[in-house]
Amino acid sequence: MSVLVVGTVAFDSIETPNETRERVIGGSAVYFSMAASYFGPVSLVGVVGEDWPEEHTRMLQGRGIDTRGLSVIPGGKTFYWKGKYQPNMNDRETLEVHLNVFGTFDPVLPDDYRRASFVFLANGSPSVQSKVLDQVVGPKLVMADTMDLWIREFRDDLLQLLRRVDGLVMNDSEAKLLTDDENLVRAGQKICRMGPKFVVIKKGEHGAMFFSEHETYVLPAFPTDQVVDPTGAGDSFAGGMMGYLASQHEITPQTLKESLAHGILVASYNVEDFSLDQMQRIGREDIDFRMERYRRMLSF
Amino acid sequence: MSVLVVGTVAFDSIETPNETRERVIGGSAVYFSMAASYFGPVSLVGVVGEDWPEEHTRMLQGRGIDTRGLSVIPGGKTFYWKGKYQPNMNDRETLEVHLNVFGTFDPVLPDDYRRASFVFLANGSPSVQSKVLDQVVGPKLVMADTMDLWIREFRDDLLQLLRRVDGLVMNDSEAKLLTDDENLVRAGQKICRMGPKFVVIKKGEHGAMFFSEHETYVLPAFPTDQVVDPTGAGDSFAGGMMGYLASQHEITPQTLKESLAHGILVASYNVEDFSLDQMQRIGREDIDFRMERYRRMLSF
Repeated sequence: MSVLVVGTVAFDSIETPNETRERVIGGSAVYFSMAASYFGPVSLVGVVGEDWPEEHTRMLQGRGIDTRGLSVIPGGKTFYWKGKYQPNMNDRETLEVHLNVFGTFDPVLPDDYRRASFVFLANGSPSVQSKVLDQVVGPKLVMADTMDLWIREFRDDLLQLLRRVDGLVMNDSEAKLLTDDENLVRAGQKICRMGPKFVVIKKGEHGAMFFSEHETYVLPAFPTDQVVDPTGAGDSFAGGMMGYLASQHEITPQTLKESLAHGILVASYNVEDFSLDQMQRIGREDIDFRMERYRRMLSF
Repeated sequence: MSVLVVGTVAFDSIETPNETRERVIGGSAVYFSMAASYFGPVSLVGVVGEDWPEEHTRMLQGRGIDTRGLSVIPGGKTFYWKGKYQPNMNDRETLEVHLNVFGTFDPVLPDDYRRASFVFLANGSPSVQSKVLDQVVGPKLVMADTMDLWIREFRDDLLQLLRRVDGLVMNDSEAKLLTDDENLVRAGQKICRMGPKFVVIKKGEHGAMFFSEHETYVLPAFPTDQVVDPTGAGDSFAGGMMGYLASQHEITPQTLKESLAHGILVASYNVEDFSLDQMQRIGREDIDFRMERYRRMLSF
């Protein structure tokens, strides 16, 4: 079934202790779409400026990503983010953010996108996320991401949104901030009580935790010695997770756990090179191959 | 087969954001012994002062721990540590350390301890750890722990020791310090090349990683919402791990992975209350019960 994502499409400039890259393709909707594309069709809704190279769009289309929802604003400039990673490759500092055309992004879904079964509201203001949701008719599963800014400054909007989504994915520091609880197990359980049927807390190199009314579990990250650029790891996790789920007949505790594992593995590839470079090289068979190793790793 | 541990026997004073405890029973050899005692016999070598209550020793004996190797120094005072945990319950600050009788500890193994099959050299100076090893005859498995002090100040002694042990357990920050590498996968593999047949990197609430020439894997911690006092988690992990291994017929990649899981689960109980309180309450059946849940959590 088709997956719809609404989020940023961006240029990223990335500094790591070893290398830098200028104005490479990035953005939450881009990472998510790429990651979901291994499992089935994806539709992307976002906005770019005139500076966006047509070849980036064609590359996404080449992965089976429907880009009819990508608006190009004449005279506008594309969202730009510049960040610097610390030697631990986990902590990062934002050096520059220019919202540009994303600052006034008011997503309007093409008519045939409104019946998407699987909807991912990538990180954005909760009110814009809600407006997207208003346009969707009878989705099977809605997941959202969020960030510290919205938790701090738009808490009420966010709490309203949480009552309307099936799943929330967020990172560990955001979960602690939202619940004012330093224990991630309690934090995840508290967020479940705010509305979502399930919550996924992403722990970066330490994996991801899953919470629902009846379940609490954690799966580790796939250990890799090649962490080149963690940008987009969270979105490629979410894309792998939702893409896999959409390819299954049913959403069950079992397929949800499998989807978490698939998200973890797609993210483990993503961090192995800058931007989309490694995700462009691999195919579904690589994910399946790593999944075999991952399952063996976790069985004893 | 019998397990031998040489390490500290201590009084700990512990401050957490919620509660404090004064002069409770602690020390690496104590936590290790308790944890190993669920799986079979343990012998403890350590030193205490006159201030050590006989009832603490009797409590350990009641768990089947052989304490003939525990020296009591007349007029001496027992090792004392005072620490304070941050709200995240992971980071802690040492407020006081008094080595007392441990400062001149020169362990001499009782004759019948020298043929112990499983030997754990708890955190201590590498030269003292080596002297213990000199007294052991034909052990089946030797594991050691270490800490930042020895890595920084006694690196050569430590490197010599590493060529003589089968396994090294250490925490993530120590592994990074020893190898000057921020990537734990590379760090673990580098430490393997320093001598040990296998290396375990403990990641606290994020679980543990295992490295050998042919294997690299990670197992998550058991998620608990009740982290009361993390003191001794690393030693109870090691005790659970080695205790389980010693109870098996063979040391194989399979039993090693099972032992890691057992260490993780014993540690998950340990942190649920102060000092040995939770470990005194539970039995082997509780560990087996949690193991069932842990295996289910990791299978999909």
